[in-house]
Amino acid sequence: MNTFGRLFRINILGESHGDCVGVLIDGCPPGISVPLEIFTVDLERRKSGTPGTTKRKEEDLPTIKSGVFKEKTTGAPILILFENKDIDSSVYERIKDTPRPGHADFVAFKKYGGFNDYRGGGIFSGRLTVGLVAAGVIAKKIIFPAKIEAKLIEVGGLKNIDEAITLALENRDSVGGIVECRAQGLPIGLGEPFFDSVESLISHIVFSIPGIKGIEFGAGFACTNMTGSEFNDVIIDREGHTRTNNAGGINGGITNGNELVFRVAVKPPSSTQKVLETIHIKTNEKVDLEVGGRHDVCIALRIPPILEAVTAIVLADLMLIAQALIPFKQQSQKT
Amino acid sequence: MNTFGRLFRINILGESHGDCVGVLIDGCPPGISVPLEIFTVDLERRKSGTPGTTKRKEEDLPTIKSGVFKEKTTGAPILILFENKDIDSSVYERIKDTPRPGHADFVAFKKYGGFNDYRGGGIFSGRLTVGLVAAGVIAKKIIFPAKIEAKLIEVGGLKNIDEAITLALENRDSVGGIVECRAQGLPIGLGEPFFDSVESLISHIVFSIPGIKGIEFGAGFACTNMTGSEFNDVIIDREGHTRTNNAGGINGGITNGNELVFRVAVKPPSSTQKVLETIHIKTNEKVDLEVGGRHDVCIALRIPPILEAVTAIVLADLMLIAQALIPFKQQSQKT
Amino acid sequence: MNTFGRLFRINILGESHGDCVGVLIDGCPPGISVPLEIFTVDLERRKSGTPGTTKRKEEDLPTIKSGVFKEKTTGAPILILFENKDIDSSVYERIKDTPRPGHADFVAFKKYGGFNDYRGGGIFSGRLTVGLVAAGVIAKKIIFPAKIEAKLIEVGGLKNIDEAITLALENRDSVGGIVECRAQGLPIGLGEPFFDSVESLISHIVFSIPGIKGIEFGAGFACTNMTGSEFNDVIIDREGHTRTNNAGGINGGITNGNELVFRVAVKPPSSTQKVLETIHIKTNEKVDLEVGGRHDVCIALRIPPILEAVTAIVLADLMLIAQALIPFKQQSQKT
Amino acid sequence: MNTFGRLFRINILGESHGDCVGVLIDGCPPGISVPLEIFTVDLERRKSGTPGTTKRKEEDLPTIKSGVFKEKTTGAPILILFENKDIDSSVYERIKDTPRPGHADFVAFKKYGGFNDYRGGGIFSGRLTVGLVAAGVIAKKIIFPAKIEAKLIEVGGLKNIDEAITLALENRDSVGGIVECRAQGLPIGLGEPFFDSVESLISHIVFSIPGIKGIEFGAGFACTNMTGSEFNDVIIDREGHTRTNNAGGINGGITNGNELVFRVAVKPPSSTQKVLETIHIKTNEKVDLEVGGRHDVCIALRIPPILEAVTAIVLADLMLIAQALIPFKQQSQKT
Repeated sequence: MNTFGRLFRINILGESHGDCVGVLIDGCPPGISVPLEIFTVDLERRKSGTPGTTKRKEEDLPTIKSGVFKEKTTGAPILILFENKDIDSSVYERIKDTPRPGHADFVAFKKYGGFNDYRGGGIFSGRLTVGLVAAGVIAKKIIFPAKIEAKLIEVGGLKNIDEAITLALENRDSVGGIVECRAQGLPIGLGEPFFDSVESLISHIVFSIPGIKGIEFGAGFACTNMTGSEFNDVIIDREGHTRTNNAGGINGGITNGNELVFRVAVKPPSSTQKVLETIHIKTNEKVDLEVGGRHDVCIALRIPPILEAVTAIVLADLMLIAQALIPFKQQSQKT
Repeated sequence: MNTFGRLFRINILGESHGDCVGVLIDGCPPGISVPLEIFTVDLERRKSGTPGTTKRKEEDLPTIKSGVFKEKTTGAPILILFENKDIDSSVYERIKDTPRPGHADFVAFKKYGGFNDYRGGGIFSGRLTVGLVAAGVIAKKIIFPAKIEAKLIEVGGLKNIDEAITLALENRDSVGGIVECRAQGLPIGLGEPFFDSVESLISHIVFSIPGIKGIEFGAGFACTNMTGSEFNDVIIDREGHTRTNNAGGINGGITNGNELVFRVAVKPPSSTQKVLETIHIKTNEKVDLEVGGRHDVCIALRIPPILEAVTAIVLADLMLIAQALIPFKQQSQKT
Repeated sequence: MNTFGRLFRINILGESHGDCVGVLIDGCPPGISVPLEIFTVDLERRKSGTPGTTKRKEEDLPTIKSGVFKEKTTGAPILILFENKDIDSSVYERIKDTPRPGHADFVAFKKYGGFNDYRGGGIFSGRLTVGLVAAGVIAKKIIFPAKIEAKLIEVGGLKNIDEAITLALENRDSVGGIVECRAQGLPIGLGEPFFDSVESLISHIVFSIPGIKGIEFGAGFACTNMTGSEFNDVIIDREGHTRTNNAGGINGGITNGNELVFRVAVKPPSSTQKVLETIHIKTNEKVDLEVGGRHDVCIALRIPPILEAVTAIVLADLMLIAQALIPFKQQSQKT
Repeated sequence: MNTFGRLFRINILGESHGDCVGVLIDGCPPGISVPLEIFTVDLERRKSGTPGTTKRKEEDLPTIKSGVFKEKTTGAPILILFENKDIDSSVYERIKDTPRPGHADFVAFKKYGGFNDYRGGGIFSGRLTVGLVAAGVIAKKIIFPAKIEAKLIEVGGLKNIDEAITLALENRDSVGGIVECRAQGLPIGLGEPFFDSVESLISHIVFSIPGIKGIEFGAGFACTNMTGSEFNDVIIDREGHTRTNNAGGINGGITNGNELVFRVAVKPPSSTQKVLETIHIKTNEKVDLEVGGRHDVCIALRIPPILEAVTAIVLADLMLIAQALIPFKQQSQKT
C-alpha cells in the first residue's frame, strides 16, 4: 500500500498530472526544527535541468499543511504538498490505449479496470519521489549526527558519467546506471529480526522508487566469488570495528557500527526519442508509438538524493524502535 | 519485527538451540487441504545431508498445533512447530565472549544487552527458515495453479556446482552462490503501489533469510549496461505477453503476466574449519577462534526451497489483497 | 497513531486553527463514483448552526487533491482537504498556560513537551471529525446497499431534546447525550476474530471521536440485569434471523445478519460560559478562567453523522477483508 | 485478525478443544525476569472452580517455548502454550447442525464455510483468554510500578455477589455482571491521537473478550445526565491532579496522571441448564436443544484477571511508544 514504516510512517500521495503530489508523515517526534529552507538543497538536487534530465520544470516548493507550528514539528501528522504546475497531458489522451513498453501503463489499466489516472503515469510516476525527498529531510534530522551520502558511480557501463550521457543524447537513446549509498556514524543495533533486517527495510523502500532493478549490500553479488575466509570481516576491537567491510556494515540484519554501504541498479528509462513498438489494447493491432512528451535520458542522475532520503526514513524508524525496546533495567523489576 | 504480510501474515519464532522453531500463520483462508504429507517434499529439499551441508541432523517433522481441523485450514491461526533435537550447545558457552566474525554474535550482544540466546545463533540462525518453508507450502496452495521454481545456478563463480563444492571441501573453506527463482502462471496485477511493489515485498522477505547480500529482478544489474531500446520489452498482444523479459515480469512494481524472474546472491558461510581472528568482548584482547561445531560449507545449496517459499508467501498475500480490491462494479452503486 | 483500518485505511490530519483539516484514504477500490455533491448531505448534518452548537462557521467544502479522476476513485490514495477559514485564535494565546479543565490542554502540553499547536485544541479538536465524515461518505458507497442511521435519543437525561437544549442555554451550561446507531442489510460474517471483532473495531474508532465516554451494543449494560434465558436471542430460521436482538446483531464478534445496534455516551462539552477553575502551569497558582471563544453547548447534537461515518468505515474495511478471505474452493486445490 | 498492538504485539492462537491454546508475544524488551512462577497467581484467579464456574478443569500450566533464556526475555518472540487436557467434545458432534442461540456457532459456520473447528466454540471460546492472562503478566512487569486492579462490582443487578450466584444456581439460569478496572501510578501522556486514544485501545481489546457488551470510562453513561460544570474535573496543581475524576483519568484520549477507571458489562452466558430453542441449519426445522456440557453460570466471575491483563497489554505498548516518541532535544539538532 501507500504507507511505509512502523513508528515513523510515511504515506505517499498524488499523481504526476493531478493537482499535486505529496507526503503525509505520522509518528514524527515533536520539537524538530523544520524551517522551509531546510528542504531546498535536497529538492534542488532531485530536480531536472541538467543534461540528460526531462524538460518538465517544476518549482518543487513544499507547502506544509499540518503538523508544524512555529517552525517545529508538533507530534501531529505532517502533510507536505507540492503543486503540479508544468503539466502537458495532451499526449496521454492520444496514447492511452497503446501501452508504452516498459511502463506501468498496461498493468495499471488491467489492475484498476481502466479507472487509473493514466496521465503522466499517474501514481507510477517518478514525480512521486519528491515526497520521499521531503520526508527524508526530516528523517535526516532524526538520525543526526549520522550522515548519508549517495552518488552515481556508473552510467551505461562507464565510470565517466558525463561521457556516457553525451553518448546517450547523441544516440537519442536512454541509459541506466549504478548509484552507491553510504551511511556513517550509525549506532550498533539498528534492525529488527526476523523480518525487519536493515537490508529488508532498505530494499523494500528502494524498490518502490520507479526504475530500480537490483540492490546489493557490501560486497554484494561479488561475494558469491569469494571464500568465507576472504569475505569474513575480522573484528578488531570491542567497539566492533572490522578490518574489511564486505558485510556493508550489517550482520544478521543489524547495523554493526561500520559504514553502511549498498548499491542499486537503475534501468534505462523506457520512453525515448525512438519509435516504440506496442499493441492497441482494444483492437490488438500492432502500433508504432512516438511518445513525444518530456523524459529523462538517464533517471539514475536524479536518484542519489532519493536514495539518501529513503535510507534516512528507514534508519529514523529503526532508531525510534530501538529507543523503545532498550534492554530492561534490573532495578525496574520486582522479584 | 517477527511478522510479515498484510492479510496472509506469518510470524516466525524459536531459536536454533531452544525447544523448537516454528511459524504462526494468520489470515489463511479456510478450507485449504493441508495433510501433513504435503510438507514433506519442501522440508526434505531444505534439509542438510548432501556434501557441503552441516552434519546437524534434524528430522524436521512439523506438528500442527492449531488452525487445522479434519486436515483443512479453519480460518484460525495456524501454529506449526518443529522440535529441536540434535542440539550440541557446548561450543557456544566456550565462545560466547568472542564474537565470530561475519555472524550476528557481536550485534546481538550489543542490541539485546547480553540477554540474547547466543546458542547456535539464537533467532539469527538459518534454522529459523524451516518455518518459512512450512508456511510456503500452504502459500503455494493459495497461488495454485501458479508455479514457482528456484535453483542454484552458480557456486563460487562456477556453473558446475558439484565441482565448486568439491573444491571448497578440499580447501576447508566456504563458498557463496547465486540462486535464481522463477514463477509462472501469475495473474496480471499483483503488487500494491506505492510501497508494496512485487520487488519491494519479495526483497523484504528475501533479505530476512540469513546470508543474502543482493537481489536483482529480470536483467538486474546488467540493465545498467543496456540502452532503453535494448531493455524495453515489446508488448506483442493484449494479454501483455512481451517479446523479451528484461523486466522480469514486473512493470511499475506490478506483475505483467510474464514469467517472474529474480536472482539472489548468497554469501559464503562465516564459520569455517579455519582459525578465525576476533577479539574478546570484555578484555578487548585479540583471540584466535576455532569454532568447531557443525556448519554448512555452502548455504546456497539449501536456499532454493526457502526462496520458493518466501516468494509464495508474498504472492499469496498479494492475491488475497487483489481479490479484496477489485474494481468496483457500476451496478453496485447508487447515482 | 493517526491511521485506522487494515485494507480501507484512513489517515486523519490537520489542526483546528491550522491551514486545514483532512483525511487521506488508502486502499479504496477503483471505480467508485464520488462526485463532489455526494459529500454535501453528511457534511451539512455535521455542521454547527442550530441552537446549541458553536458560532464558528466553516463552509466545509471538500477539495479532493488526489485519487479521483473523472469523478471516480482510481485506486490511488485519496486526499480530501477542508480549509480552515473562520479562525479566531486570540483567546488561545491568552490561556495557553492555564489548561482548561476537561480539555486535552494539560496532557498535550506534557506529552509533546510544549511543541503542540494549542490553538483551538490543535489535533484534539472536534473539527478533525470533518475528515471522518468525508471518508464515511465513500465507505457508505462500498457497503451499499447496507444502510446506517444514527440519531440522538437523549440529552441531559431527557428524551425531549429541544427542551433539554433550551434548558441548557438558559443555564449557560453544557449538556451530554446518548446517540444510537443502527445498520441494516449487513451480510453475515463481518468481523475478524480474535481481536478484530465488530465491537472492537467500532469502539476503537468511536472512542477517537472527542467527547465519547461509553459505548454499548444491543442490550448493553442492561444485559447485566438479565438472565441467560432472557438475553439469548432465539434463532428462528436458517438465515439467522432472531426473535429478539439483545446481541445487537453480533455474535462472537461477527455480524449475524440482524440489525447492528449500539449506543454511545457523549459528555457535556468542557468549555462553558461559566468561570472555570484551573491552575497556571508554570506558577502553580489557582486561576479563574473565562474561556470565551465559541463552543457547542451540546456536541451530541453533531455526533450522528460522525457515528454513521465511522461505522461505515469499519464495515467497509471488514467487507473488503471478508472478500479476500472467502472459504477456499475445493476445485482450486490439488489434493 | 489475531494480533494486537504496535510494538508490544500479542498473537492469540488455539482452539477450545484442540491441542492447545496460547499466545505469541513480539516486541517484548529483553532482560525482563519471567520465571514460571510469576504466572501462577493470575492464572489461578482466572480458573474455574468456585461456585458459578464451569466444571471443566484445566491445570493451565504455561510452557514457554521460545523467547526466554535463563529465565529472562531475550528480545525474540515469546511463545507460551497451554495444553488442553480435560476435553469432552462428544456433545459438539451431536449439536453441530443446531447452532446454540447467543453463541458464535451460526456465524462461524457461515463465515468459514463450515470449515471452522466447532468443538467447544473453537477459537471463539473463552478458553482463549488464558493466553491473554499470560501476556498480561509480562505486560504488568513492563508498566511496573504502575498497578492495575479489577473487581466484580455487581452480578445480576445485585451488589451482593454471593447472593446473586446462589440465586442463579437455584434458577438453573445464568447471570451477567459488571467488572470495574482501575490503574494507578500511570505517567501522564500515554495514548496516541487521533485513533489510538487510551479508550480506543482498551475498548478494542476488551471487546475481544467473549461476552462483553458495553464499556464506559470514568463517569461513563452517567455523564449524559450531568452538566459541564458538574462533569469538569478541576485541575488543582501543575502535576495535573484533579478534584474529581469524572474523566476516568483520560483527557483527549491521553492519560492525565489520575487514576484510570473503566467498567465493562458482561452478558449472562448463553449455555444454561434450560432447554434452548433453535433451528436445524440444513433442514430449517425448529429444534429444542439440551446443550449439556460444562458451562459457567456467570462468566463475569472470571473476567477480573483478564481485564487487568488486557489493560496491562495496552499500557505496556503505549509506554514503549511514548519512550520512542519523546520530544526532540534541541541540542541534538543542527540549526
